Amino acid sequence: MVSDRDYYCGLDATIDVIAGKWKALILWELDGGTRRFGALRRGVSGISEKMLIQQLRELEADGLVHREAYPEIPPRVEYSLTELGASLNAALLPLCEWGERNMDGIRATRSRQSA
Amino acid sequence: MVSDRDYYCGLDATIDVIAGKWKALILWELDGGTRRFGALRRGVSGISEKMLIQQLRELEADGLVHREAYPEIPPRVEYSLTELGASLNAALLPLCEWGERNMDGIRATRSRQSA
Repeated sequence: MVSDRDYYCGLDATIDVIAGKWKALILWELDGGTRRFGALRRGVSGISEKMLIQQLRELEADGLVHREAYPEIPPRVEYSLTELGASLNAALLPLCEWGERNMDGIRATRSRQSA
Repeated sequence: MVSDRDYYCGLDATIDVIAGKWKALILWELDGGTRRFGALRRGVSGISEKMLIQQLRELEADGLVHREAYPEIPPRVEYSLTELGASLNAALLPLCEWGERNMDGIRATRSRQSA
């Protein structure tokens, strides 16, 4: 899952916990409330089933996501944010807003460079 | 450098811009002010010279970092945050604080699981 190394600052630790692009997007999707696997997969556009399973396992192991399996037929499994996961989401909000504000500008910069 | 794809939300765009662990840490290091290459490398513990060169190029291309080369002997090159880079840093601050608050707990969770 993850490193056991020492972090040299809080940002380093957070980046380690949300390594890669998917985890932050999964946490974000769960901000809307409890989700079943299929709904999560539809919500996080572009993620493969295998990747989503793996990322959910790591998020659960780190205590950010809670997994609840109901003994029904067919089995129902639901995912939700823990309190820790919700607090990480709150800390992600400014990054989300920064992206909303700046993504058009960044896209324009990149297309000028590749022209 | 980077994708030209469509982003599906602001968080997606931001994660694309600071992909990987290094860029956020470099931006953070530059928050202390203008830095020469060697000082940056010492500040971002664990980064290789090759990786730092590549990440700085991408940050410069995205308009987050400014590179100033002074025609001296030996040549002096200094890196600093642009206004856009400083605004991204401000948005990273809550993640940094979240990490400070929670890294001991996460480390404890992980060591219980690997025990």
